[in-house]
Amino acid sequence: MNYREVESSREFLVSLDNGADWREEIEEFAELEDIESAWFNAMGAVQDADVWFYDQDDKEYRSVTFDEPLEVAACVGNVALLDGEPFAHTHAVLSRRSGQSLAGHLNAATVFAGEVYIRAFDDPLEREHDDVTDLDLWL
Amino acid sequence: MNYREVESSREFLVSLDNGADWREEIEEFAELEDIESAWFNAMGAVQDADVWFYDQDDKEYRSVTFDEPLEVAACVGNVALLDGEPFAHTHAVLSRRSGQSLAGHLNAATVFAGEVYIRAFDDPLEREHDDVTDLDLWL
Amino acid sequence: MNYREVESSREFLVSLDNGADWREEIEEFAELEDIESAWFNAMGAVQDADVWFYDQDDKEYRSVTFDEPLEVAACVGNVALLDGEPFAHTHAVLSRRSGQSLAGHLNAATVFAGEVYIRAFDDPLEREHDDVTDLDLWL
Repeated sequence: MNYREVESSREFLVSLDNGADWREEIEEFAELEDIESAWFNAMGAVQDADVWFYDQDDKEYRSVTFDEPLEVAACVGNVALLDGEPFAHTHAVLSRRSGQSLAGHLNAATVFAGEVYIRAFDDPLEREHDDVTDLDLWL
Repeated sequence: MNYREVESSREFLVSLDNGADWREEIEEFAELEDIESAWFNAMGAVQDADVWFYDQDDKEYRSVTFDEPLEVAACVGNVALLDGEPFAHTHAVLSRRSGQSLAGHLNAATVFAGEVYIRAFDDPLEREHDDVTDLDLWL
Repeated sequence: MNYREVESSREFLVSLDNGADWREEIEEFAELEDIESAWFNAMGAVQDADVWFYDQDDKEYRSVTFDEPLEVAACVGNVALLDGEPFAHTHAVLSRRSGQSLAGHLNAATVFAGEVYIRAFDDPLEREHDDVTDLDLWL
């Protein structure tokens, strides 16, 4: 494994705007506060969701769109620089009225309500292309 | 979005009591330690669960009850004041023996075993009625 | 409930190795850094997964194996000493290409890519046998 000890001197609570995009809101927040590295945890509800699954053989993301209201039961992610811009790598577990759960890489979702805890790290984190997975990874 | 930088000077590990209510245990802990604002992460197992889904059109919670043992695969939440009392807004992802997963807003659940990390913030956080969503939101 | 205030003076980001075991990587990291108590949060993807469900009546874990690529939508866990060795108690929510979600206690899983945030606590945490649940619990 690769790892790095990190220092954190700033942490935030963020309330996402109804109607905005879940991931874009987090990235805009990172830009506003000059955050180039962070870990976050979130919960709430969305009006729809574009969820990605990475095809480990074909090395391509596959998208599934859920055009329906969903709870965000859990959301885990981190912020790092991708091509010089803060990118919020976001995974989420969503749920339907029946309690049925859906999950994956959250590319986009229209916020209904969102509560986020973000822990910013002092040193920037950068994503670089990894040949084995064909993904942009850090460290 | 709305956001606030927070300061935290206390953090805790909590082991929930077998037979108690998952959310009430967290709220009792908050009262014992005078916590008016916190973020938490948890895992464990429950003996049953009352899971809520917010109907974004009718602006009402719908309840689904699972009267069966379930793993708590992930639990994310936060503590804020609601009408002057600490309220633990709790979302959870649960699972059955088959691995099938259920999720949503966790209103109540009988603890089998529960392990919780709680990060308390120094300044209180208050929930207030939001007209757009008809929910009690913070910030 | 039982609880303990904890102090943390070290936190880390870890990138798990492709092909390694998800939980073993976290335990090896804990050994490398002499961590005897920690909380973690993670996300990524795995090539397969051995997921456990605790049978609360028979007091035994039941295993389900998923021999297929899965996203790790959310992973929550903690490190404590079990028989003197760091044990990473790991729960995870996984997902398929359809967005269908699976979850439970993650015994083993072959890493495709894994991003972990680990918060180490200064004082050791030890698991001891609990008669009520027949599990090894802390505090």
